[in-house]
Amino acid sequence: MSAALLIGGTLMAVEDRLVGIIGGMGPDATVDFMSQILQVTPASTDQDHVRMVVENNPRIPSRQAAIRGEGESPGPAIAAIAARLEAMGAEFLVMPCNLAHAWQDDIEAAVSIPFISIVEESVRKALDRSDDASAIGLMTTPGCSTAGLYQRALAAAGRPVITQTPDELAEAMSFVEQIKGGNQSQEVALGLRDLADQLVDRGARVLIAACTEFPLVLDESMFDVAFISSTDMLARKTVAIALGKDELQ
Amino acid sequence: MSAALLIGGTLMAVEDRLVGIIGGMGPDATVDFMSQILQVTPASTDQDHVRMVVENNPRIPSRQAAIRGEGESPGPAIAAIAARLEAMGAEFLVMPCNLAHAWQDDIEAAVSIPFISIVEESVRKALDRSDDASAIGLMTTPGCSTAGLYQRALAAAGRPVITQTPDELAEAMSFVEQIKGGNQSQEVALGLRDLADQLVDRGARVLIAACTEFPLVLDESMFDVAFISSTDMLARKTVAIALGKDELQ
Repeated sequence: MSAALLIGGTLMAVEDRLVGIIGGMGPDATVDFMSQILQVTPASTDQDHVRMVVENNPRIPSRQAAIRGEGESPGPAIAAIAARLEAMGAEFLVMPCNLAHAWQDDIEAAVSIPFISIVEESVRKALDRSDDASAIGLMTTPGCSTAGLYQRALAAAGRPVITQTPDELAEAMSFVEQIKGGNQSQEVALGLRDLADQLVDRGARVLIAACTEFPLVLDESMFDVAFISSTDMLARKTVAIALGKDELQ
Repeated sequence: MSAALLIGGTLMAVEDRLVGIIGGMGPDATVDFMSQILQVTPASTDQDHVRMVVENNPRIPSRQAAIRGEGESPGPAIAAIAARLEAMGAEFLVMPCNLAHAWQDDIEAAVSIPFISIVEESVRKALDRSDDASAIGLMTTPGCSTAGLYQRALAAAGRPVITQTPDELAEAMSFVEQIKGGNQSQEVALGLRDLADQLVDRGARVLIAACTEFPLVLDESMFDVAFISSTDMLARKTVAIALGKDELQ
C-alpha cells in the first residue's frame, strides 16, 4: 500500500508495507523481536511505527524433535500461519526462529507474498562485518546445526566456519530450555557466553547467534569480537522493507 | 477449542481459547502487554503458553485528538481490526489501550465474540485491593479523563475517586508523549511518580494507572499505596480466559 508517512517530523511518501510475523517459536523470542523492531524504527509518535500482524502460536510442534525424526513435522502448522497472515493483508513474511527456516519451502508453497530469511540476513551481516579471511563462529542449537542452514549459506560464501561440538550444542540446548522456561538469569547468560567464547578460542572472529533465544540474555557488549544477533538483523531488515527503504526481492 | 495441555508438567484438559489483541495504541504498550501475558503464564515450555493473534497497528487515528473533537474517529479502524482478528480465529478480544475503550461499542458492533474491558478489570482489582472507604486515585491522560470511562465505573461502585487537575493531566500527557517517542528514562519515571504522589497527598489509598504507557516506566515498588497497572490486570484476565480458568461472560 502506498502512503504518506510522517517520520521524525518529516512527511515522506513511502511504500508502507504490512509485515506478517510467524511467531511463537518461542513466544518470548517473538516479543523480543517485536521490541527490536520498535527500537530500530525512527519514530517519535505511534503513527511513525510499522504495522505488524502477528500470530504468536506456541503450539507449533517441536522443531528440535522433528529434526531428530522423533516428532510431527511443524511444516503444516507454520504454513497455515503464513496463509492466515497473508489473508490478514500481510505483504511480506518473517519468522523470528532460525531452526524453523528448515520448513521455509512449506511457507513459500502456501503463500504468494515474499518470505524474508533470518539466515540470509544474519549471514550477510556477518560477512559485512569481517574481512574475507575471518572465521565465523556459529553458535546454535542441535536441531539448527543438523539442518545445516547456516553451514550451507556460509559455505556458499566461501567463508571458514567454526562450529560447536556435539557436547557444546547439547549444553547450548539446555540453556535454551532454561530461557524458554523463563530463566533469563545472569548464570544462564554467563554459561552461554562461555560457550560462545570457546568458538572465539578456536579462531572465530565473528559470532552468529543463530537462535532467537540467545539474544534474550546475550548482547554484543559481552564479547571481544563482533556478535551478530539474528533477531536484530531480521528486525532491521523488516523495518527497512516495511518503511519502503529496501526493495522486496 | 477444547484441548489437552501440558502445564507445568501436568496434563490438563482445558478450554484453550485464542485471544485477539487489538494493538498499536501505542506499539510499545502492546509489546509490553504481550510480555506481561508471558510473565504471568505458568509455563515451562513454548507449548504451555497461550496462543495470540495480534494486529499491532500504529496508524489508528489519534484517540486524544478525536476526544477533543479535532480529528477523525478511530472507531472504524479499531472495529476493522477487531473483525480481522475474529476472521483469523480469535475467540475473544482485548485491547491494551484505556482511552480506546471509548470506542468499545464500535468493536462490539463489528464482531460476535466477547470483548474483555481493561477498565472493568482494573476497577475490579482496585476495589478488591482496598476497603470500602478507601479513595481511589485515577491517574490517566486528558482524553481518558474526558471520556469518563473510569469515573463512571467507579461511581457505579460507590467508591470515592481522586482525579487529576487539568494541569496534572496535561503534564501526564507530556510524559506519555515522551514515552511514545522512546524516552523511558528515569527522569520520565520520576516525573510520573511525582504526579501520582499528588493523588496520594490528596487522599488516594489505591492508584489506578489508567494508561498502558505508564507501566512502561512505573511499577508498584515505587509507591507506598497499592498501584494497579491496567496492563497487568488485563494480561492476567487474558491468561485466565485463554487457559480456561475463567469463564467468558
